[in-house]
Amino acid sequence: MLITEILYTITQIRQKIKSFKEKKLVIGLVPTMGALHIGHESLIKRAKQECDIVIVSIFVNPIQFCLGEDFEKYPRQIEADRQICSKLGVDIIFAPNADEMYPDEATRIDENFTIVAPPASYQNKLCGNFRKGHFNGVATVVLKLFNIITPDKAYFGRKDAQQLVIIKKMIKDIDLPLEIVDCPIIREPEGLACSSRNKYLSAESRNKALCIFKSLKNIEKLYNTGITSASEAIELSKKLIDPDLEIEYFEAFDFETLKRAEKIQKNTLFAIAVKINGVRLIDNLII
Amino acid sequence: MLITEILYTITQIRQKIKSFKEKKLVIGLVPTMGALHIGHESLIKRAKQECDIVIVSIFVNPIQFCLGEDFEKYPRQIEADRQICSKLGVDIIFAPNADEMYPDEATRIDENFTIVAPPASYQNKLCGNFRKGHFNGVATVVLKLFNIITPDKAYFGRKDAQQLVIIKKMIKDIDLPLEIVDCPIIREPEGLACSSRNKYLSAESRNKALCIFKSLKNIEKLYNTGITSASEAIELSKKLIDPDLEIEYFEAFDFETLKRAEKIQKNTLFAIAVKINGVRLIDNLII
Repeated sequence: MLITEILYTITQIRQKIKSFKEKKLVIGLVPTMGALHIGHESLIKRAKQECDIVIVSIFVNPIQFCLGEDFEKYPRQIEADRQICSKLGVDIIFAPNADEMYPDEATRIDENFTIVAPPASYQNKLCGNFRKGHFNGVATVVLKLFNIITPDKAYFGRKDAQQLVIIKKMIKDIDLPLEIVDCPIIREPEGLACSSRNKYLSAESRNKALCIFKSLKNIEKLYNTGITSASEAIELSKKLIDPDLEIEYFEAFDFETLKRAEKIQKNTLFAIAVKINGVRLIDNLII
Repeated sequence: MLITEILYTITQIRQKIKSFKEKKLVIGLVPTMGALHIGHESLIKRAKQECDIVIVSIFVNPIQFCLGEDFEKYPRQIEADRQICSKLGVDIIFAPNADEMYPDEATRIDENFTIVAPPASYQNKLCGNFRKGHFNGVATVVLKLFNIITPDKAYFGRKDAQQLVIIKKMIKDIDLPLEIVDCPIIREPEGLACSSRNKYLSAESRNKALCIFKSLKNIEKLYNTGITSASEAIELSKKLIDPDLEIEYFEAFDFETLKRAEKIQKNTLFAIAVKINGVRLIDNLII
């Protein structure tokens, strides 16, 4: 097994990219914040099938964390991540530090840095309402990674559904010529959607959190039995959520435009966010 | 003389670019809003010297005009522009219409479009104070053009000094691998800085506007005689401005950081904006 090379600087990775481009190799990027789990693994495997070169970026992006969020304690485990990448045949890990990505005084979104701002109509809902500025930070770092690595394809999971829609919209609006590959949610055996933040859960919280997926499956069941009102399906399914889970939102939107959905139809996104013992979990179902 | 080809769609120009890249040709872009004058000509000539292929984009970008500005009456003269481009050996004119650049319902900066927002600290001064949202519109369209054309070099005039600084900052912040070539102000024989908006001036206004360059030359003279206080130099030079000109600003900043300059030194930018009979003119001097 080859050990995946880790590159830390933009200059280094650009040199590699240049040589790949000269050989006309198809480059796939899997952007991550590390703490890789089987969800990330599924993205990497998909990229390996479709690309000549697979690059995994690992960067805990300070500007997408809001005040009071878990930036400091977010899991960092580069050697474990490297083992996973090596096992899966990843060609390069790009793991810059914050000074490499934000060399100016500005390492947070602030008044000294150029920001990519996704449309307000895509931000002022779902996670955007609870994480002010989060999607500006996401769009900005993703654009930076795209500009540095110039991938042909980039792989994102559907678990972060709003992020995925916003990045697709960004690509279209600013004419970036690359393909966003949108990949299904991967779940732990009992149904909990994979997330690096699942590490924060106690055994008890983890058990209680299983109701999230159950309530989403209930939506699908209701739809299959003929219910077409999104709000009705949500109200009925909310009853399956354990009362110890604090629901931030449980709502329905169109998966492309993020316009609110009244009627359930193809591409309706049911998205839920809860807090349990201070841990924030999100999940969703796309019809 | 070859007549320069005009391409109107993103698909068409991308095909051309692809063939240029395959031949490893160096591509230079001169982004304009048309109504080409000898200022633009100087950018094109510089690009011709340094690049294998020169592309001039002509696009009156709706999202950089503020409410009440001259978007509707901004001069449009594609055939005259084409003659100039042909004379100078421009390879391609890219002249998309607004629907091509903003295919969504959003043809203005609004809540439905992904926007590039230059840093507040670069925007909240000079023209940014008088043209709210202008530089978001500029940065967004310039990034779109860069993504569509993927030039190796892009040419901008120093007349729009704040725009130039903001674009350089954008390139650096979002890691766009291209070179911004910053080119000197070109002036009409009497000293008025070339601008497509000079067409709006009556003979009388044009004559009165000559004092703008005189007052900037006075700054330089004062500096050469030992005055180092920026505000003192400005106060003395303001006296040369005709009272019929309404001064929007006459201020000194650093040409890279746009931080206010107290002391005159290398790279101090003296920038002035005036209104005369409803026509807005800008000019500047960089020490």
